[in-house]
Amino acid sequence: MTSSLDWQAIHAELTGIETITDPQQLTKLSLDYYHFSPILQPQLADKRADLVVRPVNEAQVQQVAQVCVRHKIPLTVRGAGTGNYGQCIPLMGGIVLDTTRMNQILWIKEGVAAVEVGVKMAAFDKQARLQGWELRMYPSTYRTATLGGFIGGGSGGIGSINYGQLRDRGNVYGARVVTLEDHPRILTLRGDEVQQINHAYGTNGIITQLEIPLAPAYPWAEVIVTFGDFLTAARFGQALSDGDGLVKKLVTVCADPIGGYLTALQEFIPPGQSCALLMVAESSLDPLEALVKDYGGTITYQKRAQEAQKGTSLAEFTWNHTTLHARAVDPSLTYLQTFYFDLERVAAMYEQFGDEVMIHLEFLRVAGRAIPAGLQLVRYTTPERLGAIIECHEAQGCAIANPHTYILEDGGRKVIDPLQLAFKEQVDPYGLLNPGKMRAWGEKFDRK
Amino acid sequence: MTSSLDWQAIHAELTGIETITDPQQLTKLSLDYYHFSPILQPQLADKRADLVVRPVNEAQVQQVAQVCVRHKIPLTVRGAGTGNYGQCIPLMGGIVLDTTRMNQILWIKEGVAAVEVGVKMAAFDKQARLQGWELRMYPSTYRTATLGGFIGGGSGGIGSINYGQLRDRGNVYGARVVTLEDHPRILTLRGDEVQQINHAYGTNGIITQLEIPLAPAYPWAEVIVTFGDFLTAARFGQALSDGDGLVKKLVTVCADPIGGYLTALQEFIPPGQSCALLMVAESSLDPLEALVKDYGGTITYQKRAQEAQKGTSLAEFTWNHTTLHARAVDPSLTYLQTFYFDLERVAAMYEQFGDEVMIHLEFLRVAGRAIPAGLQLVRYTTPERLGAIIECHEAQGCAIANPHTYILEDGGRKVIDPLQLAFKEQVDPYGLLNPGKMRAWGEKFDRK
Ligand SMILES: Cc1cc2nc3c(=O)[nH]c(=O)nc-3n(C[C@H](O)[C@H](O)[C@H](O)COP(=O)(O)OP(=O)(O)OC[C@H]3O[C@@H](n4cnc5c(N)ncnc54)[C@H](O)[C@@H]3O)c2cc1C
Ligand SMILES: Cc1cc2nc3c(=O)[nH]c(=O)nc-3n(C[C@H](O)[C@H](O)[C@H](O)COP(=O)(O)OP(=O)(O)OC[C@H]3O[C@@H](n4cnc5c(N)ncnc54)[C@H](O)[C@@H]3O)c2cc1C
Repeated sequence: MTSSLDWQAIHAELTGIETITDPQQLTKLSLDYYHFSPILQPQLADKRADLVVRPVNEAQVQQVAQVCVRHKIPLTVRGAGTGNYGQCIPLMGGIVLDTTRMNQILWIKEGVAAVEVGVKMAAFDKQARLQGWELRMYPSTYRTATLGGFIGGGSGGIGSINYGQLRDRGNVYGARVVTLEDHPRILTLRGDEVQQINHAYGTNGIITQLEIPLAPAYPWAEVIVTFGDFLTAARFGQALSDGDGLVKKLVTVCADPIGGYLTALQEFIPPGQSCALLMVAESSLDPLEALVKDYGGTITYQKRAQEAQKGTSLAEFTWNHTTLHARAVDPSLTYLQTFYFDLERVAAMYEQFGDEVMIHLEFLRVAGRAIPAGLQLVRYTTPERLGAIIECHEAQGCAIANPHTYILEDGGRKVIDPLQLAFKEQVDPYGLLNPGKMRAWGEKFDRK
Repeated sequence: MTSSLDWQAIHAELTGIETITDPQQLTKLSLDYYHFSPILQPQLADKRADLVVRPVNEAQVQQVAQVCVRHKIPLTVRGAGTGNYGQCIPLMGGIVLDTTRMNQILWIKEGVAAVEVGVKMAAFDKQARLQGWELRMYPSTYRTATLGGFIGGGSGGIGSINYGQLRDRGNVYGARVVTLEDHPRILTLRGDEVQQINHAYGTNGIITQLEIPLAPAYPWAEVIVTFGDFLTAARFGQALSDGDGLVKKLVTVCADPIGGYLTALQEFIPPGQSCALLMVAESSLDPLEALVKDYGGTITYQKRAQEAQKGTSLAEFTWNHTTLHARAVDPSLTYLQTFYFDLERVAAMYEQFGDEVMIHLEFLRVAGRAIPAGLQLVRYTTPERLGAIIECHEAQGCAIANPHTYILEDGGRKVIDPLQLAFKEQVDPYGLLNPGKMRAWGEKFDRK
C-alpha cells in the first residue's frame, strides 16, 4: 500500500468507475505468468496493486489518468494478465487499470479493423471471420488475452509464419493513447508512430483503441506429423515454411520427449517420436501430404477446419502453451526464447545440450525469410547454469529474448529504444506508468 | 503440308469439329511471340499447321487425338498463342488443336477451382473475385492467355512474389489429360503427378481440365515510385518484397531508361528516373508510403483498386509486357530471363553491361525467399554477342532461362526431366505431340 497517499480522496475522484479492493482480487489482478521463470518467481510474487480500476470507456481512462497524475500514483495497465515476464505486475503498487471492460469491436472493413483494447482475440476473430477476415497473428493465449495486451507485451505467434511479428512495419496501423501529462490528452498515432507504444509494456501511455490490419480467413485444417528423428522433423518444418505453394498458419516442431508432456495429445505422439503441430489451409492438405512423404513423416492426426473448431485447437499446444503443458507435468521446467536463424544452429544446440534443453521450434518470418525460432524447455537447476546456457547460445550466434527478466530492454529488445524513451518523456513526464520496467527511464531520471 | 497424308479421309473423320484451313488463319494460328527473339525469328517464321481444329469439349479432343494417332499426324496444342519461344509453333506441320472454345469454369469453391483449359485468365479472375478469390499468379498476358497455355508453357508472373512459380508444389492440384495412345485415354493426374505435364509445352498429352488453388482476392492498389538511382530502386524492391507486414502482388523495378519505353506511363516516369511498378493491397498503402520515404523514392502514380480496374493495369507494363512495349518503340531490342538471386549480382551486371543490358527486375519467391529475377532488355547486335552476354551472366552465378530457343530443356529447365520423358513414352508412344520440342525424346527415339 502506497500509504502516504490520500486513498479516500482518490476513491472519491474515481466516482463512476468500477474499483476493486478485495485483497484476493488484488492478488489475482496484480500477477501474470511470471512464475514460468524461477528467476522472476521470488522477485515478483509479493507485488500488489493498491487498487484495481475497470473503466468502460476512454473518458473513464482519462479520468483515471488525471487522478494518477494529480496524486502521483503509479499506474500499470493490465489486459488479461497472461504475460510471461511480469509485464503487468505493479512493481511499486499503485493502481492497476484493467481494460477488459473496454471490449467493443468498432468496425471491421476490407482487411482492417478498429477495436477497443480490451477485446479478447478469439472473440474478435469470431466476428471478423463472418466477414472473411481474421487476425494476422495471435498468441496461443488468444482465447483470453486482449489485443491491447498483445500489442503492449506480446510479439507474435500463430500467423507469424506469414506476417512476421508485431514489430514489422504494417502489422499495426494506428492507436489512440491516453497520456499521463498534467492534463491527460488523447493522442492518435498512425503508421510508424505506433512503434512508440508497440511492445512498450504500457510504459508509454494507455492505449485505448487500435487499428489493425487483417488477414484473409481460411478454413484451417490441423495436423500432427511424427518423425523418428528430430532433425528430420526440423528440416520438414523448414521445407513447409519455405513451400511457397503451401498455405499455412502454424509450423511447430517439438523434439522428443516434449510430445510426452502434451498429455491430451498422447495418443497421437508415440513415445520416442518428435512431432510437428501444424495449421494449413484445407486446400493445401494434398500437397502437405506429399511433403510429409518426402520427409518420411507419419500423419497421426488430421482435422478439417470445422471439426478443429469444435475441440481444443492445436494452437493451444504451441508457442508458450507448450511450456504451460510441460510445466503442468513437471513444474521444475522453465524455458528460453531463441532465434536460431538456421537449422545448422538448431542441430548444434541439439547436439550440445541434449535433454537438458529440449528443443521446441516455432517457424516464423523475419525480414522475408522463414527462420526457426525456439521456445526450448529447460531442465532448470541454478541461475548460474541457466545463464551459462544462454551465453553458450549467444556465443554461437543465436539471439535470445531472455524471458527471465521484467526489464523491457533486457528481454527481446536488448538495446534502449531512443524513440520510446523520447515518447515517454513527453507522455509520462512523472514516470508513473508501470514504473521500474523501462531501464532507460530509470537510468535517466530515477537516479537524479 | 504433310502431303503424304490422306487429308480427305482425315477431314471426314473430324466431322462435327470446327476446322480451319484458310491460309491466313493458319498462319495466325501457327505462330506466337517467337519474334521477340532475333534468333528464333528466322528459325520459325515459316512453320505452319496444315489444319487447325477447335474442339468444344473433351470428347472432341479425344476424337482429334484418335485421328492423329490413326494417321500419325503431328499434333500441337495451342491456347492463345502468346508464348515467347515458339512453344506452340508446329515445327512439322500437322494439326494445331486450338483450345479456346473449351472455356467453361466448372466450379469455384473455397480456395480451389476447376476449369476447362481454354478459359482466359482475366475472365476467370473476374468470376472468381465475385466469390472472394483470384488466381494465385498470372502472366502479364492474362487478358488473352489461357490457363492451359500458362500451365503448358508459362512459369509465373504477377502473384509470384507470394506463391512462387507454377512448378512449386501446391500451385497446380490436378489435370485431366487426353493421351495419344492407339486408343486415346483420359488420365486424371493429381498432386505431384501434374509435374509430368507442367511446363511440358504440350508434348505430354492434351490437358483438357485443370484444378487450381486460388488466392484470397484483395482490392489491389497500383503505384509507381521513381528513384534517381537504379540500385536504390532495386534495394527498395527487395525491402518491399521482404516486408512481411506489407501485402503485395507485384514488385517490378526498371532501370532508367526503360521507363522511356513505357509510352503510356511517360508522365509518371520522368527521364533519368528508375521506377518501381507495384500492386499492393489498399490496406498496405500507408506502410508502403513509409517504406518509400525510407528509400527516398517519389510516388508519382497511385490508383485505388476500383479506379485501377477501369483503365489498363500496371501489370500490363511488367513481366514480358515491358519487353513488348520497348520493342514497339525499338524493334531491335530483345531480352533475357535471369535469376540474379541477390542484389550483389544485380549491381555487378548493372556495372558491367550498362545500357547494353537494361535491367528490368521482377521480384518473386523461390524456395521461400524473395529474390530478384530479371527480364532485361538487350540491345541486340549479333548471336555471338548475345551468347557472350549469357555466358558472362552464368559465369557470375546468375541462372538464365534462355528465351532464344524453342527446345524445352535448353530454356529454363536446363536438364532432361526423366519424369516427363517417361510419361511421354507412355502417353505419346508415336511422338506426335509438338514434335521437335523435347530434346530428350529426339535423342532417344528420332535418331534410332
Ligand atoms: C501459455 C502462454 C502462451 C503465450 N503465448 C504467446 C505467444 O504465442 N506469443 C506472444 O507474443 N505472447 C505469448 N504469451 C504472452 C501473452 O499471453 C501475450 O503476449 C498476450 O497477448 C498478452 O495479452 P494480455 O491481454 O494478457 O496482456 P497483459 O499480460 O495484461 O499485458 C501485457 C503488457 O501489455 C501492457 N498493456 C496491456 N494493455 C495495455 C494497454 N491498453 N495500453 C498499454 N499497455 C498495455 C501491460 O502493461 C503489460 O506490460 C503467452 C503467455 C502464456 C502464459
Ligand atoms: C507480352 C508477353 C508477356 C508475357 N508475360 C509472361 C509472364 O508474365 N509469365 C509467363 O509465365 N509467361 C509470360 N508470357 C508467355 C505467355 O504469354 C504465357 O505463358 C501464357 O500463359 C501462355 O498462354 P497461352 O494460352 O497463350 O499459351 P500458348 O502460347 O498457346 O501455349 C503455350 C504452351 O503450352 C502448350 N499448351 C497450351 N494449351 C495446352 C493444353 N491444353 N494442353 C497441353 N499443352 C498446352 C502449348 O503447346 C505451348 O507449348 C508472356 C508473353 C508475352 C508475349
